[in-house]
Formats: sequence, structure tokens, C-alpha cells
Amino acid sequence: MSPAMPTAAKLAASPTTTSTAALLTFSNSFTPANLSFPFTKTVSISTNKRRKSSLQASPIIISSMIEKETPVAERPPTFLRETDENNASSNSVRARFEKMIREAQDSVCSAIEAVDGGGKFKEDVWSRPGGGGGISRVLQDGAVWEKAGVNVSVVYGVMPPDAYRAAKPSENGGSTAVNPGPVPFFAAGISSVLHPKNPFAPTLHFNYRYFETDAPKDVPGAPRQWWFGGGTDLTPAYIFEEDVKHFHLAQKSACDKFDPDFYPRFKKWCDDYFYIKHRGERRGLGGIFFDDLNAYDQEMLLSFATECANSVIPAYIPIIERRKDMPFNDKHKAWQQLRRGRYVEFNLVYDRGTTFGLKTGGRIESILVSLPLTARWEYDHQPEEGTEEWKLLDACINPKEWI
Amino acid sequence: MSPAMPTAAKLAASPTTTSTAALLTFSNSFTPANLSFPFTKTVSISTNKRRKSSLQASPIIISSMIEKETPVAERPPTFLRETDENNASSNSVRARFEKMIREAQDSVCSAIEAVDGGGKFKEDVWSRPGGGGGISRVLQDGAVWEKAGVNVSVVYGVMPPDAYRAAKPSENGGSTAVNPGPVPFFAAGISSVLHPKNPFAPTLHFNYRYFETDAPKDVPGAPRQWWFGGGTDLTPAYIFEEDVKHFHLAQKSACDKFDPDFYPRFKKWCDDYFYIKHRGERRGLGGIFFDDLNAYDQEMLLSFATECANSVIPAYIPIIERRKDMPFNDKHKAWQQLRRGRYVEFNLVYDRGTTFGLKTGGRIESILVSLPLTARWEYDHQPEEGTEEWKLLDACINPKEWI
Repeated sequence: MSPAMPTAAKLAASPTTTSTAALLTFSNSFTPANLSFPFTKTVSISTNKRRKSSLQASPIIISSMIEKETPVAERPPTFLRETDENNASSNSVRARFEKMIREAQDSVCSAIEAVDGGGKFKEDVWSRPGGGGGISRVLQDGAVWEKAGVNVSVVYGVMPPDAYRAAKPSENGGSTAVNPGPVPFFAAGISSVLHPKNPFAPTLHFNYRYFETDAPKDVPGAPRQWWFGGGTDLTPAYIFEEDVKHFHLAQKSACDKFDPDFYPRFKKWCDDYFYIKHRGERRGLGGIFFDDLNAYDQEMLLSFATECANSVIPAYIPIIERRKDMPFNDKHKAWQQLRRGRYVEFNLVYDRGTTFGLKTGGRIESILVSLPLTARWEYDHQPEEGTEEWKLLDACINPKEWI
Repeated sequence: MSPAMPTAAKLAASPTTTSTAALLTFSNSFTPANLSFPFTKTVSISTNKRRKSSLQASPIIISSMIEKETPVAERPPTFLRETDENNASSNSVRARFEKMIREAQDSVCSAIEAVDGGGKFKEDVWSRPGGGGGISRVLQDGAVWEKAGVNVSVVYGVMPPDAYRAAKPSENGGSTAVNPGPVPFFAAGISSVLHPKNPFAPTLHFNYRYFETDAPKDVPGAPRQWWFGGGTDLTPAYIFEEDVKHFHLAQKSACDKFDPDFYPRFKKWCDDYFYIKHRGERRGLGGIFFDDLNAYDQEMLLSFATECANSVIPAYIPIIERRKDMPFNDKHKAWQQLRRGRYVEFNLVYDRGTTFGLKTGGRIESILVSLPLTARWEYDHQPEEGTEEWKLLDACINPKEWI
């Protein structure tokens, strides 16, 4: 892989206002998994004193360049700016990506409501005067799911000159001498966390996103930058091998349509990203995760992201159908709740989208809808070796090949 | 206030191994409240790549200079090093501080067990070959408390030369030219979080700690540094004015014995420290909090910390006696659980002791014993104006003067 986007450019995709919060919402990954420390440091510094380094200062500048969102009564046909609609037409990648994630939101929400049989999604729509906006949907305390959130959002922003310059070495091999001026960017994504009630029914998270800059007008030869990111991962409290195999096979099947290297590579990336370092465990049993993906044909990656998003229902719903009505006891529930505690730990301590959103003032309810309705922390809980609880923990500590 | 300890020296009190984890445990404050970003940045960097800056590198160096702890079967009479016992005698501040926190641990645990009437504390003792160690006590799923932890610990470490040098301008007003060599330090503390079951019975947190360096032997005139820190704060889910007044009066009474400025100053400091920035709320109704305290007579401050620790039982137990058996319904319990969610958010996202401990590899069960047994997150929960839930939230958003 050759990630062409520089750290600062990636940061640019994580601005600080509400629409971004929705984009970041339960992303667990809106900022890249392989992002190094400039990100964390920037977050810290941005709430205190600025540094002169361009990388560190970027989010501050970006945040001030994104307009404030307002709630709206109806879903607009598109959140794209008019200029996008006119110039790039409905065939542009950004237009087709927006269409894809909105269709995915509709189909996932419909499938969830159908299986739940009781709960209904509550919808919040917001937009910005100059373009961009989002749709948040949350189903809470349903018959099958205790909390299910599915959000889409579209963000326009302006990347500070230094951030783009860092991305683009000059033709002569040195740094670009000309300051290109602020570079407009576009980011869109869908993100979702689905927490069922039954301790034998697993939590699912998925998130797919697309990022693009304009080509700087005043620096000839400087390219338009773009990348795809995303993933789908499963977090059960108990292992049913047939479920985990089915889930991973669905991911592999989506990947294999595009590149035989994708599944093994993105499966490992997922295990590495959802790592609760202070526990030495993953939060769940993985799936796929990728980011900064641009070293492939753009159309192919758009198709790949679409395939992945379309795989969510067939990968997840059959598992829920099998587990949602299984009888369980208080011990099973308590163990699920302990694992939910781990989910909270991962999201609040490590997830870059969440921690960034919290520290930079995003809409808190959108960011934290990824947290489970209920969670539990017992002092020094150690499952007895050989028990079902121990097997789950072991698989979180030592990621397995499921297929 | 004139905090004489530099950031790096404070960092030195937050090393990375288990005994420190215990010292940090539910401290919410073992590192100073007014600590600026070098702390956060150092934590980040320490898990990745080092920087050459002395401040940033300190914790890494310190952690390697503290011996690993081992569980022991019996509580030793003291965790002080033999050299301390011989040279400084039992009249040293460190010896008297250790004695004080161990007595406070005993008396608080006894009081909790007596009121609980069912639960018993589970004790873990550990020590280090060269001195230092700790006693962790946790009562879980009692009759009155769902989780109660009371920890003491004593840590010996070595502060890197640069950290001490930063603390001490030279006699000529410039930086000290002579590198003093590593400076030994000593830190001891008690920390506790008590989460009751009944939603009308408040959570209590308290933490008192003492930090001291040796005088560097090779830099004439360089002083021994020391400071006190700590506080006691109340986190109810419902406001009973008489409870909150009683609690704050007890804090004021302890403060007023030493300085009439202490209560107003430390009350505000508490409100400022326990602030959940992304919510715009405090986690509770405050109390007192102080740190870096050394601009007073050392004996006076030892007496003050002792008075504060001794005030925990009379400040808290009468409230619990009044509330522990009050009838409540599911709605009350759900609100308590939501507020417990806020407690989790504060501790995992903001508390410097916790975040430092998590990221640097402390004993996780000791660090996270501060988390409640159970917590809850509802999407976009808004208490109706004028309700009891709203009144609590309002008081967390707009801190009040209770007395």
C-alpha cells in the first residue's frame, strides 16, 4: 500500500463541528487507523495553545472554515453543493458515493426495523447553507436491539495550505515552494453501531467513507487527492463458530470480488485497529478495516466500498435471526455487560473519531450514540479457563483465522 | 498560589507500573489539575517514539527506574525503605503521611463495612524489593455499595536530571548549568471511590497524596521539593439540599481550621477540575480539590491533609444512613445509571491519573476500580425542565454555592 494522503490532509477530514461529529459518529475509524501521533497531539493542543507547525495547527483552521449546521425538517435529495451537482454531475464519485451511503442507510434501517418488529428509528436531519449535512437515525430500546444508530453525513471544508503542501512534494523532489492557498475538501460517510439485547446476539459496527480534495488552482500539476476508508466488524459476547465464520466469509466474499489480497490484509488491519491496549485484547472478533485506500483504480474502490456496505445485511441479519430469541440467564447478561464495558473503553479511550470529536466540540449525542445503552465493570473479573466466557476472551486476546 | 514543582517533576510522580497504578487509582487527580499539555503529549509519545525534550521523555525514564511490584501475603508495618526508616525516623513527613493514609484506609473501610452490613473488602497487598508498595481494598456488590474501593500506595522513583533541573532556576537567575544527576523522589497517597446502589445515595471520591524529592547531592543549594494534593467530592444523582450542605460544610470546616481562603479556593478548583468538557457539565456537585500545595508550612499542610482525610467519614456516612434505604423506582435507577455514564466519561476521557495509567501500562484493575459497576447511555436524553433530574443537571452545569 502507498498511502498518498499526508497526515495533515487526513486530519482535514476530521473537522470539529456537528456535521462532522455525525460523520465521525461511531466511525471508530474516520481518521485513519495508521494515523501517527500528530493527530493525538493536535487534538490536545487545539484545545490549549497553538503551535506553529502546520500539521498541528490544521484542525483549528479547518474547524473555522466549516459552516455551522442547522436542523432541517426534510431530507434533501442531496447534500452536495449546487456547484458539485452542476459541474461534476451525478456521475462524479462524490455524487455516487453519497447516493450509495444514503441507500445503504435506508436498506440497513429497514432491515433492522423489520427484524426488530417493534422499535422505530428516530431521525434527525441537518444541513449547512453552503452545502453538506447529514441524517442521524437511532432506534433505542427496541424488541431486539437496545440501541442501533445509522448515520450518514457529507462535509465540505477547506484544508489549510500547509496541509496540502505537505501532501505534495515538488516536481523537483523538494517541497513545493508555492503556497497553493487553502484547498477545498469533501468528505462523506456512513457509520453505524448496532447493539442487540440478547447476550448471544452480537454487536455490529460498520463505517464507509470517502475523502477528496479539489486540485489547487494556483499550483500547476498539484493533483486532486482522494481516498476510501471503512470496515465492518463483529463484537459478540459469546462465540458461535458458525456465526463468526458466516460473518467473515461474507467479508471475504466482498473482498475477493476485487482483490485476493484484500481480505487477509484488511482482516489483520481490523484486528490491529480495534485493540484495547491497556487490556491487551481486541474489543471483538474483527472483520475488515481499511483506510487511506487510493493505490487502486478509483472506480474499483467505489465499487468495493459499495459491495462492502451492501454486504452488511446478509453478513449480520441471519446471525441475529438465529440468536435474538435464545434463552439466557443473568450470568450471560452480566458477561455481555462486561464486554459492553470494553466497548466503552475502546471508544472513549482509543477510537480516533470519538476522541477527536469529544475534544473538539462535536455534537455529543451523535458522537456517543456508539456507546451501548448499558455497560458494567467488575473488579478483577477473570473467566474460568475453558468456559464460554473464557473462549471469547481468548479469541479477543489471540485473534483467530475464522475461515 | 505559587506551584514550585515543574511539570516534569509532577510527571515524575506518575510513573508507569502497578504500584503507581494503585496510587493513581481513582485519584482523578494524582497528576495536578492545572497540568498543561506536556503531560498529555508525553503520554502519547511514550507509547510511540521518544522526543529529545527532557519534559517529554521523563515518564519513560522514570518508569524504567521503578522496580516491579510483587504480591505479598501480609501487610508490612511500613512501605518505607529501611534507609528512610533509619535516617528520617518515624517523625519524617513521609513516615507520618504513610501512617496517616493507612489509618484513614482502615477507618474508612471499617465504616463502610459497618454501614453496608453485608459486603466485605477484598484486599490485595503488594510491595517492591527496594521499598514501596500498596494495599488495594475493594468491596463489590454489597448491601449498600455496588462498588467501593480504597487504595493506599507508596512509590519510590528516580526523577530524570532534566526534570529536576527544570524545577530549579540557578541562583543567578538562569538555568542550572550543572546537571544534578537523577533525583530520587517519593510519592504516597490514598484514593477511594464509593458507588452506592440506591440512586438517592451519592457517590463519594477522595484522594490525598504527598510528593517529595531528595535534595540533589551534587548541586549545592538545590532544594528538596515537596507538595501536597488531594480533595473530596460528592456525586449524587438527586439533590437533597441538606446532604449537599452537610457535605460542603464538613469540607469548609476542615479547611477553616487552617486558612479561611482554603474552602472558597479549593471549592472552585474542584468545580473546575471535575469538568466534562464535551458535556459542559461537572460530573457531580463538587467539594474541595487542591494540588501542588507547598506555599505553606509543611507541618501545617500535613495536618490539613490529615484533617481532610479524617473528615471523610463524618462528611459522608450520615448522608448514606439517610438515603440507603429510601424506596426508588426504575426511573430513578435509570437516571442514576445515566449519571454513572458521565462518571465513566470523565474518568476515561479526562482524568489525568486514569488516562496516564491506561496509556502507560499500569495494573488495569487497580486503575479502573474507580468505574461504577453499571452505567447507561441513552441517546439525546433531556430531563424535563423543573424535574429533580433537571435540577441535578442544572447544578452540574452551573456550580452553586451550597453554604
